[in-house]
Amino acid sequence: MSKVEIFKNAPKHGYIEKAIHVDSDAFKNVVESRRSVRVFDDTKIPEKIMRECLRLALLAPNSSNLQTWEFFWVRDPEKKKNLVKYCFSQPAAKTAQELVVAVARPDRWKEINNLMLAKFDEKKKIRLKAAYQYYSSIVPKAYNMGPFGIYGPFKQLYVWYKGLRRPMPRGPFSLSGMRLWAQKSTALACQNFMLAIRAHGFDSCPMEGMDAKRVKALLNLSKGASICMVISVGKRSETGVYGPRVRFDQDLFIKEI
Amino acid sequence: MSKVEIFKNAPKHGYIEKAIHVDSDAFKNVVESRRSVRVFDDTKIPEKIMRECLRLALLAPNSSNLQTWEFFWVRDPEKKKNLVKYCFSQPAAKTAQELVVAVARPDRWKEINNLMLAKFDEKKKIRLKAAYQYYSSIVPKAYNMGPFGIYGPFKQLYVWYKGLRRPMPRGPFSLSGMRLWAQKSTALACQNFMLAIRAHGFDSCPMEGMDAKRVKALLNLSKGASICMVISVGKRSETGVYGPRVRFDQDLFIKEI
Repeated sequence: MSKVEIFKNAPKHGYIEKAIHVDSDAFKNVVESRRSVRVFDDTKIPEKIMRECLRLALLAPNSSNLQTWEFFWVRDPEKKKNLVKYCFSQPAAKTAQELVVAVARPDRWKEINNLMLAKFDEKKKIRLKAAYQYYSSIVPKAYNMGPFGIYGPFKQLYVWYKGLRRPMPRGPFSLSGMRLWAQKSTALACQNFMLAIRAHGFDSCPMEGMDAKRVKALLNLSKGASICMVISVGKRSETGVYGPRVRFDQDLFIKEI
Repeated sequence: MSKVEIFKNAPKHGYIEKAIHVDSDAFKNVVESRRSVRVFDDTKIPEKIMRECLRLALLAPNSSNLQTWEFFWVRDPEKKKNLVKYCFSQPAAKTAQELVVAVARPDRWKEINNLMLAKFDEKKKIRLKAAYQYYSSIVPKAYNMGPFGIYGPFKQLYVWYKGLRRPMPRGPFSLSGMRLWAQKSTALACQNFMLAIRAHGFDSCPMEGMDAKRVKALLNLSKGASICMVISVGKRSETGVYGPRVRFDQDLFIKEI
């Protein structure tokens, strides 16, 4: 049995949030009409829509709710010009009205964890005991890799040994494991963002084909940050989608076992 | 200027896909009402809905359209029981009606790339020259790491040298870089799936707290595969959401520069 309180039993939190009815057809239309658009026309994107879509991005689920993501909306013309160059001036970047860089910030886990802990006053520490234990004890154990990731191998050895007899979480055990961990959550938010852009009548293209090193320097990011993707936004030009969507036989990817 | 045709100019593909009108409020409702639900009730999920949501998952954008993802819908009672154990029997797993394991498959890039190449007949090779160049020449250069990832360091050195003078794609340069690359695309699909589940009136919980090693063994996965997350699905019980959504000041995560 896990020693982590919150894994054992549902806490008595007294909170109720009813599931509202939503329109599945409208959602399907958003997902199906979202294509990677590589040529945009001159239509401007209202600021309000950009901000709303970024807000919706941040509603994605994420690991331990540590929100290890950052979205840079690059608006300065000079910076934007350079960003286009770092995306190899591909049409999806060159013709974009707006460019957003999604960044994973594994190095910010402690900062956000402290914000989380600050939400617990003395009463809450008792009432939400399991959650408090999670953020005060489990999270630091799980994500603190020490200077240069030096704790990682010891954690891995410990987990390997304990894991001989019972299920154990397998990582992260290194700084690159932390990067992967934060990138996953960031990607979830990216998908929210791209769908939101489509839902508001516009289009997007995620670009991993770019010079992440130069993009990092452009955004003045510290070593611990890691570029997830650049997302271009605009209204599709008539030939902005290069062809029908290509998907192979679902049996290749979906297994019922 | 990039040597990659498809980055240079938009190809003359002759394809037109108009942007349909979609309902942004309906979409917002889906995103806002999606919460990580940790206790589910006994309501069954219709098979048809599970399959539709898995289908929508696979419509996510993904790197080079190589679709390096797999979704295991674990239905066998014995396997499901073990999977719950590997998720530390946490309520979100124990009470789930359905469990899906999202897996990143960087090791399948070549297989899917071959399927992609098979779509080009002689006529298409000429008409869609840029796309053909991309899959026949660029993709193998980018993603073939050689046995044990031995090509990686050479690629990295080459890119470092070339990158002194011009923007260059920075990776993947290793098997772990390939894993990160495939995990990102898989996470995009996971978000589609979780939103789709909500859009159909049900709920989900993404779990990274699980024994990925044991889950891999359970699914009989080869070494190159990498567990992204386990997603539990069901109808929320009255107290299935543990509290109001916690998000900190947006300025911490969204930067307009």
